[in-house]
Amino acid sequence: MLKVPKHQVAGHIARDGKLGPLVNDEGQFFKPLQGDSRGQHEAEFYESFSSNKNVPHHIHRYFPKYYGTQLVLASNGCGRLPHIVLDDVVSGYSNPSVMDVKIGSRTWYPDVSEEYFNKCIKKDKETTTVSLGFRLSGFKTFDHQESSFWRPEKKLVLGYNVDSVRLALRKYVSSNSPTDSNSIPNCAFAFEVYGGSNGVLAQLLVLKAWFEIQTLYHFNSCSILMVYQNESILMKGGDGAQAQVKLVDFAHVLDGNGVIDHNFLGGLCSFIKFIKDILQSVDQCNETNVSQLDNGP
Amino acid sequence: MLKVPKHQVAGHIARDGKLGPLVNDEGQFFKPLQGDSRGQHEAEFYESFSSNKNVPHHIHRYFPKYYGTQLVLASNGCGRLPHIVLDDVVSGYSNPSVMDVKIGSRTWYPDVSEEYFNKCIKKDKETTTVSLGFRLSGFKTFDHQESSFWRPEKKLVLGYNVDSVRLALRKYVSSNSPTDSNSIPNCAFAFEVYGGSNGVLAQLLVLKAWFEIQTLYHFNSCSILMVYQNESILMKGGDGAQAQVKLVDFAHVLDGNGVIDHNFLGGLCSFIKFIKDILQSVDQCNETNVSQLDNGP
Repeated sequence: MLKVPKHQVAGHIARDGKLGPLVNDEGQFFKPLQGDSRGQHEAEFYESFSSNKNVPHHIHRYFPKYYGTQLVLASNGCGRLPHIVLDDVVSGYSNPSVMDVKIGSRTWYPDVSEEYFNKCIKKDKETTTVSLGFRLSGFKTFDHQESSFWRPEKKLVLGYNVDSVRLALRKYVSSNSPTDSNSIPNCAFAFEVYGGSNGVLAQLLVLKAWFEIQTLYHFNSCSILMVYQNESILMKGGDGAQAQVKLVDFAHVLDGNGVIDHNFLGGLCSFIKFIKDILQSVDQCNETNVSQLDNGP
Repeated sequence: MLKVPKHQVAGHIARDGKLGPLVNDEGQFFKPLQGDSRGQHEAEFYESFSSNKNVPHHIHRYFPKYYGTQLVLASNGCGRLPHIVLDDVVSGYSNPSVMDVKIGSRTWYPDVSEEYFNKCIKKDKETTTVSLGFRLSGFKTFDHQESSFWRPEKKLVLGYNVDSVRLALRKYVSSNSPTDSNSIPNCAFAFEVYGGSNGVLAQLLVLKAWFEIQTLYHFNSCSILMVYQNESILMKGGDGAQAQVKLVDFAHVLDGNGVIDHNFLGGLCSFIKFIKDILQSVDQCNETNVSQLDNGP
């Protein structure tokens, strides 16, 4: 039984008769092949990547597992269409907080049509793609006090400037109300999600080391998907976040031809700096609290 | 007594009554302030940078020393004009081999005029700026067999594709004739110039580490200047190259506003990969030679 995914934060949505991804109960994600060549291109990337012996073993975990393509009943009611079958990255979580970050200081690439170039560069300038080297495409956090998800509107997220991106990355790991615009995000989960040996930063640094040398692929217009579960932290403490980093969306991947993906790498480094800054501010905050305790009455 | 510099490989040249930089015999370089606000902007950058306490001490050596501005007789015969006074980077060399590499996958930046954007993006696409994250602006090598300099034409260099950039970076450190298009560059000086603890790669890696964290400046349209002397290697061997890396051209530097310069960093990483590839190929070549000796008759 295929259903509309509950935790998708960006991309086409299978709703109101539109074509979009579907999931099953066995933790699989079905992504319909888009009408133009992009869907086929993405399927070819997964074929190439999953069997590429030059991709180090430890890098494969940062990509969704690929199970080939399959004809299934499409969400738009147009009968059976080919879908890429992948691991559903969020299937292991009951209430995942999810963020989609499109990496790179441009989403266009050499030899695209003038029309596509113009469309991309306009959006790249309007969003933080040019200024930051990445943009937030969408996110949701689980508000455990309200027992419900909070998700800012797509339009709002795409209008973020540098400061709102910084704020959103703090909100994403905070336990106080995301809807109260007066409260400063407390970053209660920052250390468990972003920090530590299994956290987001550690995973991003593994990817960075690979991107400094890999010349196999250029990941144009790809996203980093971050997932974690804040309830797990509250219940188990410490290592309960199960923070995951995955690369997704490969409709525009090109052959690297012996050159590193400097566009992705530059944006990744910028994103890493934002995560580091938050961890550092949390560290300083804790130190202040401790020194206040030391100097207390 | 001010003279036209002998070893300039890119930028405006003080010839035929045109405005360009001058040098004196005391190793100083005089760069005229360009008519629009760019010259003033560059002077302001040098003022800011040279007194900026947040720039680590060990980073200052990668920038020309700044001596303020001075009114001197301009090269275009228009009387005394303000010039930025700097260390002449090549003054310590008798026959320097010089290369100017403009770093970044774009030379435009947010909030420039549409006209400037269009001019930049056209050139960025025509050169390797978009594809490689850097482009060669010009270079010259000293041909010690001919006792003369070899310098490819500016137009030719700007037309380089990925393969010709790779070849030029090999030619730049080779001892066989640069004019003979049939001979494969032997990379005789690669280890001394690019490698070792004082070589180009080591210097680039210091810069990379700083660019991963520095959010003070965005170095739009800046170049890395490489200088070395091949005769010194031939005479002294080993450490005689005096390979130097300097950042130059700061007319388009902007405030970093808390964000890293992902555009420069991405391009720098791409350039580093090219240098590493050459060093690795030289290493393999030496190993092959050694093993051929081992297995010899």
